[in-house]
Amino acid sequence: MSDYILHCFAQSGNAYKAALMLELSGADWKPEWVDFFNGATRQEGFREGVNEMGEIPVLVHGDLRLSQSGVILDYLVETLGTFGWETEAERREILRWILFDNHKLTGYTATLRFLRFIAKTGETDVVKWLETRATAAYAILNKHLDGREFVVGNKPTIADLSLCGYLYWPDEIGIDLSPYTNITRWLETLKALPGWQHPYDLMPGHPLPCA
Amino acid sequence: MSDYILHCFAQSGNAYKAALMLELSGADWKPEWVDFFNGATRQEGFREGVNEMGEIPVLVHGDLRLSQSGVILDYLVETLGTFGWETEAERREILRWILFDNHKLTGYTATLRFLRFIAKTGETDVVKWLETRATAAYAILNKHLDGREFVVGNKPTIADLSLCGYLYWPDEIGIDLSPYTNITRWLETLKALPGWQHPYDLMPGHPLPCA
Repeated sequence: MSDYILHCFAQSGNAYKAALMLELSGADWKPEWVDFFNGATRQEGFREGVNEMGEIPVLVHGDLRLSQSGVILDYLVETLGTFGWETEAERREILRWILFDNHKLTGYTATLRFLRFIAKTGETDVVKWLETRATAAYAILNKHLDGREFVVGNKPTIADLSLCGYLYWPDEIGIDLSPYTNITRWLETLKALPGWQHPYDLMPGHPLPCA
Repeated sequence: MSDYILHCFAQSGNAYKAALMLELSGADWKPEWVDFFNGATRQEGFREGVNEMGEIPVLVHGDLRLSQSGVILDYLVETLGTFGWETEAERREILRWILFDNHKLTGYTATLRFLRFIAKTGETDVVKWLETRATAAYAILNKHLDGREFVVGNKPTIADLSLCGYLYWPDEIGIDLSPYTNITRWLETLKALPGWQHPYDLMPGHPLPCA
């Protein structure tokens, strides 16, 4: 049995953050596919037994069961000793970007991509509004990456792995990343890390039967 | 000069999280009012010199300048020794709820309240959509609080202080909290902590001149 089991599905950028951390760190891990699009996470059994927040990813490690990608990444820094910080100041700066990611970058981007590409709601006011919020977050990240190779310090950390979670799907999100030249360069840098894989190759469930 | 300076304004629930932590802990602190509604955080001077994310709160403590309420709360646990954890498992559980708060509870609630009460956009599709997202988060928190006095463990922690940030403004948010009986009980419990104050009493800038 693998050391780490990750409840995930290919279309989840939040799960990808954890999967990428495990894979780039050479951990002994196995994905466990969750049938999200048929409502698995909305069922009582999942809420009661796996995650009361009804969200993916969930990491199982021995007796521990963890949810929220930011918590999982923090835990894996401790157990794997990779992509972490050297000082308390760096730890706080990493947490700051993970919070920004959850609230402003992934928060709006994931929902935008879900409505536009998966639920196919069309260009509603909600979709347009989410796009303005997502691009505001991209602008902040792009400016931050000016002259920086990575988000915090001079090596990749879990801040990078969190922030990039959805950004390898620009076509599905429907936002052209080319004006964000620092982001596109940084995504290429992460892509060049040994072991990098696209979310659709790293996790099961792609393509969707009905996509 | 006070030990801690908090850049804030009365209408910010995110700033309130930090202000409440400082006040309940008996810290020597002072609010520094930010003219958010006249665009102070959107100006280059603020972005370059105070916070590149263009957000409030910002905490200044000696040479340190911190942003993101979750980072500030984590830092204040360390320096004040209050509202923290006893074990690593508790620390992770607190972080899990702070991430949930930032993404799902405060994330949607704060924006809903801004559009409805401050920008007064009317009942647009975006407002209605945000309300469904906010109430989904309330349902998860309400269920979690069933049989629990506090969010994590058996004493108040920064998870409580984060999650309650916007919830003392139900009228401004426009969501009736009375069906969420565990949330309303928990808010009363927090309100009874010695030193508790409403955000409008704890931070400067209320009422808005044009509200």
